[in-house]
Amino acid sequence: MTNRLSDIDIAKASQMKPIKDIGMTLGLDEEQLEFYGKYKAKLSALELEKLQDKADGKLILVTAITPTPAGEGKTTTSVGLADGLHALNERVVLALREPSLGPVFGVKGGAAGGGYAQVVPMEDINLHFTGDFHAIGAAHNLLSAMLDNHIHHGNPLGIDSRRITWKRVVDMNDRQLRYIVDGLNGKVNGVPREDGFDITVASEIMAILCLSNSLADLKDKLSRIIVAYTFDGQPVTAEDLKASGAMAVLLKDAINPNLVQTLEHTPALVHGGPFANIAHGCNSILATKMAMKYADYTVTEAGFGADLGAEKFLDIKCRLGDLKPDAVVLVATVRALKMHGGVDKKELSTENVEAVRQGLPNLEKHLDNLQNVYGLPVVVAINKFPTDTDAELAAVQQACEVRGVEVSLSEVWEKGGQGGIDLAKKVIALAEQPAELQYAYELTDSIEDKIQKIVTKVYGGKGIQLTPQAKREIAELENLGFGQLPVCMAKTQYSFSDDATLLGAPSDFDVTVQQVKVSAGAGFIVVLTGAVMTMPGLPKVPAAEKITISDSGEIDGLF
Amino acid sequence: MTNRLSDIDIAKASQMKPIKDIGMTLGLDEEQLEFYGKYKAKLSALELEKLQDKADGKLILVTAITPTPAGEGKTTTSVGLADGLHALNERVVLALREPSLGPVFGVKGGAAGGGYAQVVPMEDINLHFTGDFHAIGAAHNLLSAMLDNHIHHGNPLGIDSRRITWKRVVDMNDRQLRYIVDGLNGKVNGVPREDGFDITVASEIMAILCLSNSLADLKDKLSRIIVAYTFDGQPVTAEDLKASGAMAVLLKDAINPNLVQTLEHTPALVHGGPFANIAHGCNSILATKMAMKYADYTVTEAGFGADLGAEKFLDIKCRLGDLKPDAVVLVATVRALKMHGGVDKKELSTENVEAVRQGLPNLEKHLDNLQNVYGLPVVVAINKFPTDTDAELAAVQQACEVRGVEVSLSEVWEKGGQGGIDLAKKVIALAEQPAELQYAYELTDSIEDKIQKIVTKVYGGKGIQLTPQAKREIAELENLGFGQLPVCMAKTQYSFSDDATLLGAPSDFDVTVQQVKVSAGAGFIVVLTGAVMTMPGLPKVPAAEKITISDSGEIDGLF
Repeated sequence: MTNRLSDIDIAKASQMKPIKDIGMTLGLDEEQLEFYGKYKAKLSALELEKLQDKADGKLILVTAITPTPAGEGKTTTSVGLADGLHALNERVVLALREPSLGPVFGVKGGAAGGGYAQVVPMEDINLHFTGDFHAIGAAHNLLSAMLDNHIHHGNPLGIDSRRITWKRVVDMNDRQLRYIVDGLNGKVNGVPREDGFDITVASEIMAILCLSNSLADLKDKLSRIIVAYTFDGQPVTAEDLKASGAMAVLLKDAINPNLVQTLEHTPALVHGGPFANIAHGCNSILATKMAMKYADYTVTEAGFGADLGAEKFLDIKCRLGDLKPDAVVLVATVRALKMHGGVDKKELSTENVEAVRQGLPNLEKHLDNLQNVYGLPVVVAINKFPTDTDAELAAVQQACEVRGVEVSLSEVWEKGGQGGIDLAKKVIALAEQPAELQYAYELTDSIEDKIQKIVTKVYGGKGIQLTPQAKREIAELENLGFGQLPVCMAKTQYSFSDDATLLGAPSDFDVTVQQVKVSAGAGFIVVLTGAVMTMPGLPKVPAAEKITISDSGEIDGLF
Repeated sequence: MTNRLSDIDIAKASQMKPIKDIGMTLGLDEEQLEFYGKYKAKLSALELEKLQDKADGKLILVTAITPTPAGEGKTTTSVGLADGLHALNERVVLALREPSLGPVFGVKGGAAGGGYAQVVPMEDINLHFTGDFHAIGAAHNLLSAMLDNHIHHGNPLGIDSRRITWKRVVDMNDRQLRYIVDGLNGKVNGVPREDGFDITVASEIMAILCLSNSLADLKDKLSRIIVAYTFDGQPVTAEDLKASGAMAVLLKDAINPNLVQTLEHTPALVHGGPFANIAHGCNSILATKMAMKYADYTVTEAGFGADLGAEKFLDIKCRLGDLKPDAVVLVATVRALKMHGGVDKKELSTENVEAVRQGLPNLEKHLDNLQNVYGLPVVVAINKFPTDTDAELAAVQQACEVRGVEVSLSEVWEKGGQGGIDLAKKVIALAEQPAELQYAYELTDSIEDKIQKIVTKVYGGKGIQLTPQAKREIAELENLGFGQLPVCMAKTQYSFSDDATLLGAPSDFDVTVQQVKVSAGAGFIVVLTGAVMTMPGLPKVPAAEKITISDSGEIDGLF
């Protein structure tokens, strides 16, 4: 790979089209676009209502097998698939997540695809973009300020400051702010209490923005956010603090999806980016729905492996947005399969066909889930790496053929849309098949039954263990009337189980539930199976140290 | 005033022109504008270099007498004057400050002019606008994160965590964050220390952005920010932390001035908004300079009364930006003069000609400063209120005539540009007069002499008292080589003195200097004469409680 151009070099060498030209290909005139410079625009969420009677295009979900720490290239495959469909003259729109600003300065690396399958302008998308995350941060911190202001001015609601669940946020990797004490230094400066900051993408408001079907729905969800409990154990909401109207005002532009393009001028709606553990990890429902109105094919992705990402996409996002995917692309890499086959991370570049075969049960379990638990047609996309050998690739292809599953070699990193044409053709054929989405659980199931069904059906585990705290919390949440919400599992992405070291397709395991919380605004129960980091730190030598800009505005070192 | 329309009603009823049409009136084509929606655009700061050989238009500074807490209408007068010049078919550009987001949710009130003299789109300008303040906040907090990350990873620079001068920022009125302890909860979560948050507009980066002459200058200033001192007492800079390149990348769009328009379609560059106490309180040098290239008349304003705002505009901004105003408009109100004449705030609506006369020395001292200390031609603009009587107005006019100073009755709140035509004509005539700006002090003066000269020449005081701490700090700063920087006075805006209750034109007073700090990046010495609030709080009933948005996106309650 040494002779290859870097992502940023490829992106810079490309010639973007004015975004109004991209909008025109979707039938949008200039009046329907809010420009943010020449290559970014927002589409009003209000347009969706006007399109109610228009038929929806097909929805294609891109998900992956259990990943290596480097990731298996879902975004790259999504971009390349869309470019492949575009090359076949299909009307296609990508619907992707927005990257977070903070991590850009931590460990080098962007989040807008890679190689010749990228979304551009990549620098802008990875920096402030259209300000959505800043708006989410402002809305979040307004609620925080109003909460503490309420207590400062006499606390008429009787908020128990030991039971405040609403932290503050900043879009920066800043471990120093994880645990703080604020309100110090006397009575004019607030009331002392324990507090902390999360990174903005972990805000419940991010999940709310992504699960809202309209501005009205957004307002409603914001009003239901629980920020604390009273001394009597009653929830205190954003509505109780009279904050949700002003919060919605701060989000009035952020709710509108962002239109950009791929290197091959395929339209892309890049909008929202919630955490994939404590939240559902998908781009916004509004962007997905708008894409389906404007295109015959919408290609979207979900975070982490299919056990987390696809499960939440289907059981949460599709359920709350009334969406049904027509086909699923399961991204696999030879490297990840070798890892599941027991190969050490340092040896993944060495040919090992037997290890690939040993790792296949992981792929097969994900396939089985998508086909049999959820009832969806699936094609496997092998995201080809330069170190993959023909024999290794053949082993994967053969296994899929034995199962009667379509498989496609995706070379989009190296070749762009041309490297995704075979995949695109298979997706088109697959999406013609009848598909009837089934959920892994029903909303009427008890919270415990929902978790149990995910663990046994999707993860392949034996069952669940609840800590005493988790039991107590489930009882409290059901008592407060939250028993009918979907559940959002916070689990390691590196294993089907809650133990990151159990690779492949483990079966003889229980999942331990440590804590259970409600995100009442977003509308799901968060089930924590271990510690979840919601505020990253910077490494010893942050990527920021190498980032510079010339006197004429050329950025260097960003990727 | 009860039958009048509110500012927001007037703004909503107006028909904006597309910003590309406004740009065209300045000779800008679409390629030179970065659109942010249809009514906002950014102009690249790089354009300024291309215009080097173009002659500058005239620069008009709008300042005010010592204000009442409600303010005397500088922004409104600036807008109305520009609209008046526009109505006379002059090529004019307004250069104003951007309002801060946080205060919008505290006490009701926007900051984009008023009545028929407003800058629009007012809702956007008062909310996220083009994201400049969010970018400043991100750059600021990146530096904070890198500072604490340095300490966390072993502190090779030997930073004394008790001498960290760089706080964090958020653009919200959040008193709870004024004084905090962070880095709590064990060794993976930072190093415990005292810390705190300022509101974003108080960030030194805001002052830097506004005092930069180019992107190169911005980078240079960022690198010189002092964030802390070592155990040996040596300053630690942003450059030492290798942070300034990434910070500049975050500010690459924020440095570009924002083009909007008045209700009467006069072009307005609204850019930057530093505090007027710990910083210099003026819009950006870049916006002012670009306005002067595009227009024959640039109308700009400075914060607070002329003792603070004009002094800093002239001694700091003009000096660092090589600017020379051609005329000054001194805004006065009958209400403020009555207050300086001893009338209680509750009685300001009752006619009292004698009190007006008693208050005139305040006006006269400001006039004297502008004419004799700084050598500039001045016109007094009486910002007319409905409660002003003819006899009161005549008293002010007469006093000006006696001094041989032009005076104009400004009715721009009620009548827009038509209410400012007389003022515009007088400004045009005044700007033809020769003017040679003199500064109140020389950069080669010692820090103590600079303060002394401001106090005696501009404030009319006897002299200065330095606390032992201030003396020590001055010695340290001169020792570190900062003796040649201009000084930035942080003093109450309600009196020429450092005692807010001394109204009129006091003379028999000393100013006590409590603390002296350096803003090494911005390039000035901050002289604190009392406690300065750099993080506001919310009132008992925040304005946010009344702010709502309809399902179709109509905002209510914002102003």
